[in-house]
Amino acid sequence: MSEKLYDIGMVGVAVMGRNLALNMIDHGFDVALFDASRDYTDSFMSTEEAKSKGDKLVATYSLKEFVSKLKTPRRIMMMIKSVDPVPALDVALYPDKAPVDSVISQLIPLLDKGDLLIDGGNTHFTDTERRTKYLSKLGFNFIGTGVSGGEEGARKGPSLMPGGSPESWPIVKPILQAISAKVGANGDVPCCDWIGERGAGHYVKMLHNGIEYGDMQLICDAYWILKNALGATNQELCEIFGAWNKTELNSYLIEITRDIFTVEDPETGEPLIDKILDSAGAKGTGKWTSQLALDLGVPSSLVTEAVYARCISAMKGARARASEVLTGAQGAKFQGDREAFVEKVRRALYAAKICAYAQGFVQLREAAKEYDWNLNLGRIALLWRGGCIIRAVFLERIKDAFDADPNLENLLLDPYFKSAVESAEPALREVVKTAVELGIPVPGFATALTYFDSYRSERLPANLIQAQRDYFGAHTYRRVDKPDGGSFHTDWLKAKK
Amino acid sequence: MSEKLYDIGMVGVAVMGRNLALNMIDHGFDVALFDASRDYTDSFMSTEEAKSKGDKLVATYSLKEFVSKLKTPRRIMMMIKSVDPVPALDVALYPDKAPVDSVISQLIPLLDKGDLLIDGGNTHFTDTERRTKYLSKLGFNFIGTGVSGGEEGARKGPSLMPGGSPESWPIVKPILQAISAKVGANGDVPCCDWIGERGAGHYVKMLHNGIEYGDMQLICDAYWILKNALGATNQELCEIFGAWNKTELNSYLIEITRDIFTVEDPETGEPLIDKILDSAGAKGTGKWTSQLALDLGVPSSLVTEAVYARCISAMKGARARASEVLTGAQGAKFQGDREAFVEKVRRALYAAKICAYAQGFVQLREAAKEYDWNLNLGRIALLWRGGCIIRAVFLERIKDAFDADPNLENLLLDPYFKSAVESAEPALREVVKTAVELGIPVPGFATALTYFDSYRSERLPANLIQAQRDYFGAHTYRRVDKPDGGSFHTDWLKAKK
Repeated sequence: MSEKLYDIGMVGVAVMGRNLALNMIDHGFDVALFDASRDYTDSFMSTEEAKSKGDKLVATYSLKEFVSKLKTPRRIMMMIKSVDPVPALDVALYPDKAPVDSVISQLIPLLDKGDLLIDGGNTHFTDTERRTKYLSKLGFNFIGTGVSGGEEGARKGPSLMPGGSPESWPIVKPILQAISAKVGANGDVPCCDWIGERGAGHYVKMLHNGIEYGDMQLICDAYWILKNALGATNQELCEIFGAWNKTELNSYLIEITRDIFTVEDPETGEPLIDKILDSAGAKGTGKWTSQLALDLGVPSSLVTEAVYARCISAMKGARARASEVLTGAQGAKFQGDREAFVEKVRRALYAAKICAYAQGFVQLREAAKEYDWNLNLGRIALLWRGGCIIRAVFLERIKDAFDADPNLENLLLDPYFKSAVESAEPALREVVKTAVELGIPVPGFATALTYFDSYRSERLPANLIQAQRDYFGAHTYRRVDKPDGGSFHTDWLKAKK
Repeated sequence: MSEKLYDIGMVGVAVMGRNLALNMIDHGFDVALFDASRDYTDSFMSTEEAKSKGDKLVATYSLKEFVSKLKTPRRIMMMIKSVDPVPALDVALYPDKAPVDSVISQLIPLLDKGDLLIDGGNTHFTDTERRTKYLSKLGFNFIGTGVSGGEEGARKGPSLMPGGSPESWPIVKPILQAISAKVGANGDVPCCDWIGERGAGHYVKMLHNGIEYGDMQLICDAYWILKNALGATNQELCEIFGAWNKTELNSYLIEITRDIFTVEDPETGEPLIDKILDSAGAKGTGKWTSQLALDLGVPSSLVTEAVYARCISAMKGARARASEVLTGAQGAKFQGDREAFVEKVRRALYAAKICAYAQGFVQLREAAKEYDWNLNLGRIALLWRGGCIIRAVFLERIKDAFDADPNLENLLLDPYFKSAVESAEPALREVVKTAVELGIPVPGFATALTYFDSYRSERLPANLIQAQRDYFGAHTYRRVDKPDGGSFHTDWLKAKK
């Protein structure tokens, strides 16, 4: 009797790997597991849930055994800790610095040409570009896929964003689409589709996270101004976010924000939110999104201000010291119509959110040009419609916008979003003014307004920057009356009066 | 008769290289030149200025000839086009991608141990870290030095920021200090001193440029609000900046801004500033400063918003299209006391400038920790006191602050700057409010205020971010009542009401 072979293998059985494996089994695919830690593997295999899967799940204790259990062409997914990108030379010299490369190099001698490796970690797209090229040359298929939705998404239906060598996609499409979240009127549209060549999937996942940073900061801005300008209680905040979740703002993040304000601290019975330290962590994808926006020369200021806001939040001790030294506007409350102001904050949040998504999609389009990917921006919006952290009805509007005009230059120019942002703009302006007056920092709202006002300005003061650069560095300038008419230089010292 | 030997060699005779060479000769050092382009070399040598130097200047036409003309230990400065950092592997494979490496590898076989190479380009500090280590191992001395002040500074006295292998410094100190700008009551304090190990000099130069980006954007913010809120004419702007240059704002950049508003377009006789295209260029150091701030986790938001503002300015066509589609606050004028408002803008600029420098010095201090440099922040401020683009009396105040407290956590906590920023804070707040109301983007002012209000807040809303991250990703959180008491996790779905 020949030994049973499994549909797919999973390397790494930490929470994401095990939840994806269970999800695959739920959808009829048998899974073999391997983890460098035998203890990890055994502790998972001894859970009731793993035991309940019977022979649909098998643990292996060497990569050789693991590979021998798989149907061919083999499909191997890796859910391994990601790291900042590693220079190619260092990969060879210090394999421990690049865990994914280390596993790949151990697997290669055990595989046959045509086998498929899938990296499902939050990998920097440059590593995925490199690995796709390298493995393609050796005759293997490779996918780097974004996996969003956290633990729960992995178990019940994540948003998946696969990119890599195009021949890879048919080999694993049935599995990945089966386990992904579903949206649409009949709940049958998978939040998983082919993104594009090489690192495109991981770039799109990173950008998703960048948008998530912006969304979360904007919610914090709203929270902070409601709490500090209006003195809103947690009970009121719960009601406000609950009500907002029934409007255009409807989304997973607004929903869980509502929930959070209802939770009691088991130790004291007081609201738990007030017991949590205001010092935010980050895992790097927001930073990467910002760094890559800077490389592309696109103004993704929402994600960057959100990252910086987390940096300042993490300087908790420094802030405590500064708060005792530096005075300024503080403590005053908003004096107008309370209910009307809450509605203005809601509209401000909506306008700023549209600006954040507009920036994100501009970055994606420019990245596609720079790195030579063929991206379908509307389809990407739809992949985020379910399963992931930024899931929201709102994303259907973005898909509609790109369906209506696949070459749409900026979401703000789409008729729906133009009208939405224009009608919310006075509220955003008034909320920022109030925050400025009261000394309440609103980094997301403020930079969204800067972006909106800059982007819709035919003229900006950069002519002065060009004059200065030509004055001190002979960098030359162009002229408004000859925009394509070459570069000019003035001897300013001689010409000044 | 033995052949004449020269004190120092210069590789690269574009404008920076030739001006530094002439400056060296002015100070009694004889210079040998080499450039890969014979035409370049000859065209320089045929200028009156070069001819007037007689035998103090010699052109050479091969690196071998060049090296043979130098006293030992040889001192060779390279003024070669810089590029984004090049991965080590690519340096070996594609020498053309890294011009400095290419010249170094051609020079090595011609040099003796103990000879000194100096890279004076705007090199990314990681390349200088790498080159210092590499050349030290081979027995050569290496310096990467920042050179600021543009063409004019190079000719008459730049600000120089050398770092590298410490043994290098005595070999070239007399030359570099002689050619640098001088400040102090007797005009004898050189704006050139040893910065620190390996890439420290290039990092400090990059950070200088980052601060320059912020300074320039803040001046643009002031220009734009004066022009658009008050309708100030170029003549008025010239008077305003001229008057400001006699206050705490006194600086090279304010001075040249004043000058710029006086210059006529030779073609039309109208003010030249209005004929210059509002589309700013950039050469990368502001981008690098931002990317490295993000890596360090320090909030250098002024330089980043300045870089993003240049990005938006460069999207001239996109802005023109958007301006025809997107409506919003626009065109209204400020209705209050004109003169009082001008003074408020001045104070806003000063407060925002202090925030920008505070951010820059925090980044320097964190970089010194991260990259293991021993930096003297007060001395660095003094090096920028003359010769460079951000030169200003203001920098003496910064030196004083670090002299008074070498471990100063943030410039805003120094008594002088605390008092300065506190007295200017209401003006900054009011100017930002006015800009927000009138729809005038002021990216620098706005982000400076966000920073000021965030930094002096003991509490920020990041507790909500931590709650959200724990909700959707089990990232855990810390508690305010147990700041060092470990990590906590809540099953929010179960606990919510």
